[in-house]
Amino acid sequence: MTELKHMKWWGWGVEGVAFHHEDKPNFAPFVYQKLGLDLSGSADTPPTFDEIDAPASSASEELLTALRTIVGEGQVVTEDLDRVVHTYGKSLRDLLMVRANLLPRIPDVIVYPSNELEVQKVLAFAVAEDAVVIPFGGGSNIVGSLTPYAGESRIIISLDMGRLRRVLGIDEDSGLARIEAGVLGPDMEEQLNQRGWTMGHFPDSFTHSSLGGWVATRSSGMQSDKYGDIADITRGLRMARPDGVVELHALPSTSTGPSVREMILGSEGRLGVITEVTVNVHRIPEQREIQAYLFPSFNAGVEAMRLIAESDASPSITRVSDANETAFTFATQKESKGIGGKVQVGLFKVLEKRGWDMERVALSFIGYEGSPSHVKYQKSIVGKIVRSQGGIGIGSGPGKLYDQKKFDTPYIRDFLLDRGACADVSETAAPWSKLPQLHANVVAAANEAYDRLGITPGWIMCHLSHSYHSGACLYFTFAYVSKSDDSISEYDGVKSTIQQAFIDNGATLSHHHGVGLEHAPWMEGDISKGGVELIQGLFEFADPKHVLNPRKVTGK
Amino acid sequence: MTELKHMKWWGWGVEGVAFHHEDKPNFAPFVYQKLGLDLSGSADTPPTFDEIDAPASSASEELLTALRTIVGEGQVVTEDLDRVVHTYGKSLRDLLMVRANLLPRIPDVIVYPSNELEVQKVLAFAVAEDAVVIPFGGGSNIVGSLTPYAGESRIIISLDMGRLRRVLGIDEDSGLARIEAGVLGPDMEEQLNQRGWTMGHFPDSFTHSSLGGWVATRSSGMQSDKYGDIADITRGLRMARPDGVVELHALPSTSTGPSVREMILGSEGRLGVITEVTVNVHRIPEQREIQAYLFPSFNAGVEAMRLIAESDASPSITRVSDANETAFTFATQKESKGIGGKVQVGLFKVLEKRGWDMERVALSFIGYEGSPSHVKYQKSIVGKIVRSQGGIGIGSGPGKLYDQKKFDTPYIRDFLLDRGACADVSETAAPWSKLPQLHANVVAAANEAYDRLGITPGWIMCHLSHSYHSGACLYFTFAYVSKSDDSISEYDGVKSTIQQAFIDNGATLSHHHGVGLEHAPWMEGDISKGGVELIQGLFEFADPKHVLNPRKVTGK
Repeated sequence: MTELKHMKWWGWGVEGVAFHHEDKPNFAPFVYQKLGLDLSGSADTPPTFDEIDAPASSASEELLTALRTIVGEGQVVTEDLDRVVHTYGKSLRDLLMVRANLLPRIPDVIVYPSNELEVQKVLAFAVAEDAVVIPFGGGSNIVGSLTPYAGESRIIISLDMGRLRRVLGIDEDSGLARIEAGVLGPDMEEQLNQRGWTMGHFPDSFTHSSLGGWVATRSSGMQSDKYGDIADITRGLRMARPDGVVELHALPSTSTGPSVREMILGSEGRLGVITEVTVNVHRIPEQREIQAYLFPSFNAGVEAMRLIAESDASPSITRVSDANETAFTFATQKESKGIGGKVQVGLFKVLEKRGWDMERVALSFIGYEGSPSHVKYQKSIVGKIVRSQGGIGIGSGPGKLYDQKKFDTPYIRDFLLDRGACADVSETAAPWSKLPQLHANVVAAANEAYDRLGITPGWIMCHLSHSYHSGACLYFTFAYVSKSDDSISEYDGVKSTIQQAFIDNGATLSHHHGVGLEHAPWMEGDISKGGVELIQGLFEFADPKHVLNPRKVTGK
Repeated sequence: MTELKHMKWWGWGVEGVAFHHEDKPNFAPFVYQKLGLDLSGSADTPPTFDEIDAPASSASEELLTALRTIVGEGQVVTEDLDRVVHTYGKSLRDLLMVRANLLPRIPDVIVYPSNELEVQKVLAFAVAEDAVVIPFGGGSNIVGSLTPYAGESRIIISLDMGRLRRVLGIDEDSGLARIEAGVLGPDMEEQLNQRGWTMGHFPDSFTHSSLGGWVATRSSGMQSDKYGDIADITRGLRMARPDGVVELHALPSTSTGPSVREMILGSEGRLGVITEVTVNVHRIPEQREIQAYLFPSFNAGVEAMRLIAESDASPSITRVSDANETAFTFATQKESKGIGGKVQVGLFKVLEKRGWDMERVALSFIGYEGSPSHVKYQKSIVGKIVRSQGGIGIGSGPGKLYDQKKFDTPYIRDFLLDRGACADVSETAAPWSKLPQLHANVVAAANEAYDRLGITPGWIMCHLSHSYHSGACLYFTFAYVSKSDDSISEYDGVKSTIQQAFIDNGATLSHHHGVGLEHAPWMEGDISKGGVELIQGLFEFADPKHVLNPRKVTGK
């Protein structure tokens, strides 16, 4: 038996942790108004695992014995629960599937290697046996990167990287840390923090996602404006392949032809399995604060973020919510704290008197890090820009709350799902000039999808989550009470409409969630037919038998 | 006939521009002392083109007619001078070859397309005819990326991109410009400057290198600390292939699998021909200045650059020269200006009294850009760090001189070559922790090579040219008076010793010059056998007939 803990098979996070709204008086009325969902009723109980009918493993005793020879006796698992946990990530679609006992194809066996050589041997074995290998980190993926192809007839091995979890060394002069790829976010940061360092990478999935997973799907974190996306943070890496290991030593920059580093980033297991990553790490900053601001409209907030990107300031977080998300944030605050309660009421009255339309107000968070004088300098530049767009600062209180609760959103999603409401996310990036139209058109497209599917009311909200010189990421969250017996097709209808709106408006299919199976249909629309061909050509060379997480990214 | 102007066939730059030292009294004594070269004698006259015996073109009239149908009557050239100009870049090796009439294989025909469709048709034609295509931008390459394989038996077409030179549009909200790939640096910046914008990319080759060439070889510029390497600046691009066009629309960041953008960056023509690039552009900064500093040693200067990279400051240029390069810089100053003359003598006396060893002094330039208050803020952070390493500021005078003369170094190289001295450059990058040992070991390796080859004295000098969070670029310049009848083998002996020292010391084979033919032997040592295999696999898919600039990057 492995000692590793996995997430709930039926939802996000660990057993015993859940969202509750008893101390948030505005939440139930808000959900009723926006989704038509009455929270006073009782929740569906998630199915017990007894009700799940997992297909039997097809792994022969001979195959299992061979795998045990590689990774050790207790590290080869065929139990149903483990195989079901390794079948899906944690998108809404994944939860709908698993809760409905829809398991068309699940892994036949899970292996838990403890080092790179064992990983490499498993891959060589898979090629020899014509078995499929799907690497698994924290299991938080939401684009189908972990899900076996339903029609797969070969043996499927899920390769769980959780035992490769050590920070192997820190080069303190260079700000580089060599880290095993299977480590989960909190474990890694704890090891770094103990020595005074941080990687500064905090995706929403942080508590249940792995370093290797971040690299394999091109992750971004909340403070990526300062620390960079994982593609910037990753300076060197090692990737096991069936016939050996690709080794890229850590470099600040290099000119060695097409970037192998950038081929492995985003490869989602199709080139091999990332075993070790050398990453940029930073001294824990002297000061760190998140200030909140309000803007009279989302577009005013976006324009402020654009001006900040153009300015001499370089904050660690730039975030602004549209009117819907701002309203949602207010509704999920406790009465006694932050801007959810009486303080908000008073503030809103003042702003209304100033002529603000409070239905359009946009909440923004901006993060600052560095020496106290640097934080002060940055805040002064940002303050001027905020005012130039009609915005006002409302202090650091809301930011502290945001910082504490930032990893909890998936629990709200599961809470709603237990009560019949579907919620999921879709994010993208585009140049600044396209963002206002993109936002309007995606919202319109989602509402058209709701109408088409007979979903009334449906909900969509958005925030700008990362800023760059030339553009930003828009992160949409959508929710509705399912009206169909076929909730999977209904979900696919909403999600694919939003994805298509991204492509139709010159935005990308994903800024930081990856491609997997779910986004593969939009690859040609995003990077052109010729671009997909180059990726597929690389995959065909690297894996002619299609045993390495087949069909992910390109669909082929 | 094409209207395009090319560089001298026998050296850098345009006819009529050359280095002279009459107003630099310390230059001749310095060269005599360091290289044993007496500049009072007369120079070799470069050969006239009459002496060059260019192999005849093998292009048939039928083939030329077909190419004329694609690009137009006057845009297909087979004249000897044009074909020789398109045979080599401008490395020392290239000049030794061409001046010695060593032309084992030269292009059979030059074509000058005017748009992407013509480029694409030339590529399709080349595949159909099994002819080789070598793309050509400004012709400044110094790693053999332009040179045909000597044993090539097929027709060779040099595809000169110089007519694709327009800035097609600026998205002013996003800071993005769409630009044709054949444009040379000064032409491009002039078009951008007219509208108040700059790309901020100024490689040493700027005056004679093209946008497409920068992308195809992963170029860096002098202000890359602020504006990013070309890989960061490039947000979208179009690449013609024999069967169509790869189109990547401009995005600030994306999560679409292995990065096709980063496959095309550095591909040196092996995947297709870059026709258009969408790049980050910036408003011309309000203030711009370069401050000079002196450090008691190179390692003290490097440590200061490391601390600046770790600090809250973000200068546009970080540069520090070792003792040899500092002495060279002083020797090339005019008497009346900067720190080359009387001012230096006085300053050095003061520093000697403070206990400095003036044989070890290291000159540094740091560039600042932004609002006046931002420049002031940055300078104050940097000033503290400089002082912490024992350094002193010496004002903005030397920086102004450096800024004016920064593109002139290749003319000095040609001046020396006319007088029998060989000089060339080799640059690399490594983590901060490795830089002091790397510097010492590369210098030692070069000196060992000089000894082995009977070169006494030989010269090598270095500057740190670009800083990153985790490391920096070290840029070496080496020079010697040739002692061998076989000056090519002699040069290869020195250059390859330096390259091997890079790899042996954990540095990369090149930070920003690319791979070409010259650096290909070190690819496996740099990115591992498995890494080279992935690149070659991609090339094999993209170009199964090996007609697209064959053998570049991987040597295969």
